[in-house]
Amino acid sequence: MSKDLQYYERRQAAVIRKRIRSRLDALLLTQAADIRYLCGFTGSSAVLVFARQGPAFFTDGRYTQQAGEEVAAIQTIVSEGSPFLRALQWIKESKVRTLGLDFAHCTVSSLHQVKQQVGKKVELRDCSGMVEGLRLIKDAEEIARIRLAIKLGSALFPTALKHIRSGIRESQVAAEIEYEARRRGAEGMSFETIVAGGARSALPHGRASRERLPQRGFVVLDFGVILTGYCSDMSRTVHLGKPDARARTMYEAVLRAQLAAIKRVRPGVAVSAVDEAARSVLNKAGFGQFFTHSTGHGVGLEIHEAPRIAGKQRQKLQPGMVITVEPGIYIPGEGGVRIEDMVLVTERGCEVLTPTTKRLITI
Amino acid sequence: MSKDLQYYERRQAAVIRKRIRSRLDALLLTQAADIRYLCGFTGSSAVLVFARQGPAFFTDGRYTQQAGEEVAAIQTIVSEGSPFLRALQWIKESKVRTLGLDFAHCTVSSLHQVKQQVGKKVELRDCSGMVEGLRLIKDAEEIARIRLAIKLGSALFPTALKHIRSGIRESQVAAEIEYEARRRGAEGMSFETIVAGGARSALPHGRASRERLPQRGFVVLDFGVILTGYCSDMSRTVHLGKPDARARTMYEAVLRAQLAAIKRVRPGVAVSAVDEAARSVLNKAGFGQFFTHSTGHGVGLEIHEAPRIAGKQRQKLQPGMVITVEPGIYIPGEGGVRIEDMVLVTERGCEVLTPTTKRLITI
Repeated sequence: MSKDLQYYERRQAAVIRKRIRSRLDALLLTQAADIRYLCGFTGSSAVLVFARQGPAFFTDGRYTQQAGEEVAAIQTIVSEGSPFLRALQWIKESKVRTLGLDFAHCTVSSLHQVKQQVGKKVELRDCSGMVEGLRLIKDAEEIARIRLAIKLGSALFPTALKHIRSGIRESQVAAEIEYEARRRGAEGMSFETIVAGGARSALPHGRASRERLPQRGFVVLDFGVILTGYCSDMSRTVHLGKPDARARTMYEAVLRAQLAAIKRVRPGVAVSAVDEAARSVLNKAGFGQFFTHSTGHGVGLEIHEAPRIAGKQRQKLQPGMVITVEPGIYIPGEGGVRIEDMVLVTERGCEVLTPTTKRLITI
Repeated sequence: MSKDLQYYERRQAAVIRKRIRSRLDALLLTQAADIRYLCGFTGSSAVLVFARQGPAFFTDGRYTQQAGEEVAAIQTIVSEGSPFLRALQWIKESKVRTLGLDFAHCTVSSLHQVKQQVGKKVELRDCSGMVEGLRLIKDAEEIARIRLAIKLGSALFPTALKHIRSGIRESQVAAEIEYEARRRGAEGMSFETIVAGGARSALPHGRASRERLPQRGFVVLDFGVILTGYCSDMSRTVHLGKPDARARTMYEAVLRAQLAAIKRVRPGVAVSAVDEAARSVLNKAGFGQFFTHSTGHGVGLEIHEAPRIAGKQRQKLQPGMVITVEPGIYIPGEGGVRIEDMVLVTERGCEVLTPTTKRLITI
């Protein structure tokens, strides 16, 4: 806990510096992941305010005990009604003149509430990206937690393999993966488990259905866990029955694309270049039109966070970013392949965090 | 599918009537649950626009096949980039002069994008609550689906009982509940499963942790499934070891409060009166200060939707609403009790949908 506290204090100090540099009297945060990042609170109802007189944490009566246990070194105010309205009242009483809000997460209705409560004299400014910009670069504590989440997540792949066979329901395979995740201590899955067999493997988001796995064909698995708040995310594609030449070509093209993209990951490289590396391999192999999504995304407290690894994105990779690299091809009516690892950007290049083999497994 | 189609068409017709009555040229919807409600699409990236020339559905390339299968009778536009930006372009080309947006879900950043893309001449109006107002009253198809979700959800309680014992980890009990849910066909859990034993039962949101259940004391269970999109939600509290007089008093107070609240549920009654009925029983029993949350909430495609069953809420109950009734008491350091059913408001009163016994079970 004292080690955690150190990290929280360091993150809070970074927000305070940003608040001062932006000449804001106060900054109002409502996004659960931002709040967890900054003070460790894991509940669903909370508001965090950084003001000149110090930070203040607001929650409601359901979380009195939990806030006491989790939120250290911050003044905690338990409201009778909405913590959001209570926080606005506190801000008003604090004679704030410039208030930062995260416009990318604040709804228009909430903005109206803010205006009504704090009065017209307070200048409201967009601070979207302020905490996101910090969360983009994982600190040592976060990387340690992500490694543990990935370790647990990848330990579920053998469980999946043990159960995959023709005739079993996709949902049953998902059930086995999720049961094992819980047994090993996961707090939950980081997204709806994807198990998509045969023609359904051509659905990029083929959540496990009641369909049974076919005699022959690809099965795409995509799953992740949440452990101490942090997400893991991995995809592997296996083949039921002996793959024919076409299936082999598809698989190899995706694997080559994935390896080419990973090879581009290092500080200073634009994320679009990583996307382009995967896309160019698949274009050359004649599968370009079937690669219908972007190459990856950041992962941390949320399963999808900055940066997006996509064309047209100018952002440059920096040490401490953790991203997925997950090209795939999806041929309607036929099948699909996706291979996904999590990758940490290091000082000199990158480290593939997902330890699982990418050799084509036949079942 | 044709029966479903009928329902989707009826719901769409209701939105179209509302759009016309509000003198809007177009209405832009982005909330996943609203979109699923109106056209059946289950994916994560979609925008639905109701304009004078008819409805249009926008998604991205990952969902081409799925949209083809799920979205019937609506023009579907698959965008290369963001479906939101593509929809705004389409709105601009449609010469819309008044555009409705759901300010309760639209972020300030999105509002700026809308203004930028459709131009300054378009009048933007708040339509929050428009679709929510429809979803508030469940139609026959929805009630049928909710009944099935509840049937599956309550079938998990015996599974939980089979595994609850001193020394087992809360997370292991959750694992068994969730595994059985999957095995029986649930698409997922409707929220993070709560298994909170001993002193942890005093946490109103005690998500299953790695803690082991104690020798003696309450165990609060709160869980739900998602089936064909609809959520179930139930809580029961059991006791490890023989309950002493104090535990019995606590349990009976909560049960009486829950029954008193259910007794108030019928059309025309203010939701605050239902909350008050539960609160008054607990006040008289001397536990009022430990009932730290509201009495319930609507349930449907989302686990928390309108109406909120709380004090100060003036909304009146109407036939077709589906709500939870879930008073609880939480005594820090000691323990807690919560009992929760789902209840359908009928023409003449209400129907308790959750079939599970509320007798205190001792293990």
